Amino acid sequence: MSTAASFSCEIVAIGSELLLGQIVDTNSSWMGEQLALAGIDSHFQTKVGDNPIRMRAAIELALARSDAVICCGGLGPTQDDITRQVIADVMGVPLVRHDDIVERIRTRFLDRGRDMPENNKRQADVPEGAVVNPAMPGTAPGLICPIGDGKVIYAVPGVPYEMEEMFTVGILPDLQRRAGVTAVIKSRTLKTWGRSESGLAETLADEIDRLDEEGGATIAFLASGWNGLKVRMTAKAASEAAADAVLAEEEARVRAIVGDDIVFGVDDESMESVVLDLCRRHGLSLATAESLTGGLIGARITEIPGCSDVFRGGVVSYASEVKFDLLGVPEGPVVSEEAVTAMALGACRVFGADCSVAVTGVAGPGPRDGVEAGTVWMASAVRGDVEAFQVQWPFDRERVRQFTTITVLAALRRRLVGLG
Amino acid sequence: MSTAASFSCEIVAIGSELLLGQIVDTNSSWMGEQLALAGIDSHFQTKVGDNPIRMRAAIELALARSDAVICCGGLGPTQDDITRQVIADVMGVPLVRHDDIVERIRTRFLDRGRDMPENNKRQADVPEGAVVNPAMPGTAPGLICPIGDGKVIYAVPGVPYEMEEMFTVGILPDLQRRAGVTAVIKSRTLKTWGRSESGLAETLADEIDRLDEEGGATIAFLASGWNGLKVRMTAKAASEAAADAVLAEEEARVRAIVGDDIVFGVDDESMESVVLDLCRRHGLSLATAESLTGGLIGARITEIPGCSDVFRGGVVSYASEVKFDLLGVPEGPVVSEEAVTAMALGACRVFGADCSVAVTGVAGPGPRDGVEAGTVWMASAVRGDVEAFQVQWPFDRERVRQFTTITVLAALRRRLVGLG
Repeated sequence: MSTAASFSCEIVAIGSELLLGQIVDTNSSWMGEQLALAGIDSHFQTKVGDNPIRMRAAIELALARSDAVICCGGLGPTQDDITRQVIADVMGVPLVRHDDIVERIRTRFLDRGRDMPENNKRQADVPEGAVVNPAMPGTAPGLICPIGDGKVIYAVPGVPYEMEEMFTVGILPDLQRRAGVTAVIKSRTLKTWGRSESGLAETLADEIDRLDEEGGATIAFLASGWNGLKVRMTAKAASEAAADAVLAEEEARVRAIVGDDIVFGVDDESMESVVLDLCRRHGLSLATAESLTGGLIGARITEIPGCSDVFRGGVVSYASEVKFDLLGVPEGPVVSEEAVTAMALGACRVFGADCSVAVTGVAGPGPRDGVEAGTVWMASAVRGDVEAFQVQWPFDRERVRQFTTITVLAALRRRLVGLG
Repeated sequence: MSTAASFSCEIVAIGSELLLGQIVDTNSSWMGEQLALAGIDSHFQTKVGDNPIRMRAAIELALARSDAVICCGGLGPTQDDITRQVIADVMGVPLVRHDDIVERIRTRFLDRGRDMPENNKRQADVPEGAVVNPAMPGTAPGLICPIGDGKVIYAVPGVPYEMEEMFTVGILPDLQRRAGVTAVIKSRTLKTWGRSESGLAETLADEIDRLDEEGGATIAFLASGWNGLKVRMTAKAASEAAADAVLAEEEARVRAIVGDDIVFGVDDESMESVVLDLCRRHGLSLATAESLTGGLIGARITEIPGCSDVFRGGVVSYASEVKFDLLGVPEGPVVSEEAVTAMALGACRVFGADCSVAVTGVAGPGPRDGVEAGTVWMASAVRGDVEAFQVQWPFDRERVRQFTTITVLAALRRRLVGLG
């Protein structure tokens, strides 16, 4: 039996548009992450255009140096989509049209109220000896093609949601079986804000050393800009329940070490979703007053479906007079504690909201009214009580705006958590 | 002399974080686009981790099947950064430390008020026979490494702005010389909004046929979501002036065929920058009133440095009462022509602005108050005169919000262009 340590899988992304830079190959990155998480080595990723000779060379090379190859793209219904044929050539077998798959595709079209174009029958062509991926979220079937000496080629469409479902349902379990991975591997991501990556790594260094010696979960860091700094814990165990238990214990340890203050969410939670949930739990409504972010805070909050039961609205007070007239900011410097405090209270008043966040500052690139770029005052108001603070960002305009957005929401989150 | 048709260059992206999916490889996409634009074939792109044996295999393979190889990443100062050593191994030569480059790196650090760490001296190690890229925007030197039989390996850092400058200044001219590309290749991109890709392609089909027969520029389409649908014209000519003349003629033809109405910008212009420029030219100030977009329109406008001379501010009126109270929307359905008209006028009044855009609708995923998801009313106001229209988007929440943003700005743009 081969083991996960020696078994490897590589990815061949197919499509001239990838080489020409018209599309960025995010599919390979996604699959690479999933393979790593599942403990399957992946040493190479290749992009190749819609050319049969070069495509075949790329697949054969991948097959020579790895145990499994995932081909992504080129499964569509047009003449350009030659992945099926090239894989059949690599296998040395003919393509066989499967009538049951033709009917499956036809049904998909009918479900969407459309007739199947004649071209799409080509998608039911399968190399002899191969089977179709059990998942088929779109109209393109995926392929699982066993090769001699225990190797395998998978083919998935380039459409991300189709690729992801086929990978999860039809490829990963098969890969794990082939690799002899019998353990269950699960991971949990804690999202943090308020510490640098190196600072967090230093804080957790002893714990990581302990895990290295005693076993248990593994810990990895991933900086994701204004989506937070992620701490990903991965556990390998004999059962799902056992893996969950390891993760629960490790999460408690990490939280105890780094402090709950900076851990704002888990897995799919975002700073916005967490603030909305906290407001909802406490029956509080929310408003915003934004200067340099220009609407970015409101835009992020309203990305979350269902935010309308909490979020009432916001003012983008870009011109100083707007701050004075609409928000009741006193005349004077608009990048100041006094101004941001008045903005936070003004937002609550104008929108009849229980809490608010407010920001005023200079996004850059240059200084404005004598205030240096990157200087930002932020405030949160909760039932009339305002807390304000100042930050000096060493970043460019885009990151000043993004980091201001998550930082002011993080400040409100901490206060809402404090409400119990 | 080799010609551009047979000469090819491929890219090897280096870094385990690329395989693990922690970073998406946008560098290769960018370089792929630049190579295509310059008329240099590129048939493969490979990602490989920080492993000397596999990295060497990937580079040697690339060198065997292409005339030039660009290695991206692994030029940093740490022990993990082994690209220099691996290239020296491929060349069969030792690394030589260049004292002048050590001093150049030291100066870069001093310019930023820092001492050079000892580690960074490693970045001055150059394979014997190689030279340093003339561009060095950061602290890492790039490499140009001639190999026997007229081939070449380039090495650039993985930091995008460093890679881009080195590619443009030190690699592309060298590649074009090696490829025997003596023609000047220039391109110009027209950004459009208001037609589908297939619709635009159909409209331009005769012109593309004409170009195929008579020569001149080439035309390509690129759909870029809420950044517009791009029409890229590329011209190859004996001189820069001649290429510019071809592009100018082709731009005039394309504009005449598709209509100036839908061409909103050229090259780096965005819908936001164009609207701001038009407002500035006519001495008009701008405000926004947003419901379903939640601040996205304001956020896009304020991405543009210097927008503050035009943009006064906006209201995010997420709750219905905000529309009624702050913007003077009459009681009644808030997704309606009457409501959006009142919002547009309200925004001008509240912010003392000459023009405004306003949107109200249902972003989804589900319906709201009996209004189907994707239903959006939009309006623009110019000096008190409002024009409103309704759109029914067949998209998900994110794209409903994004497409609404560019569509309402496009409507205002058309009116401002009409002012002459």
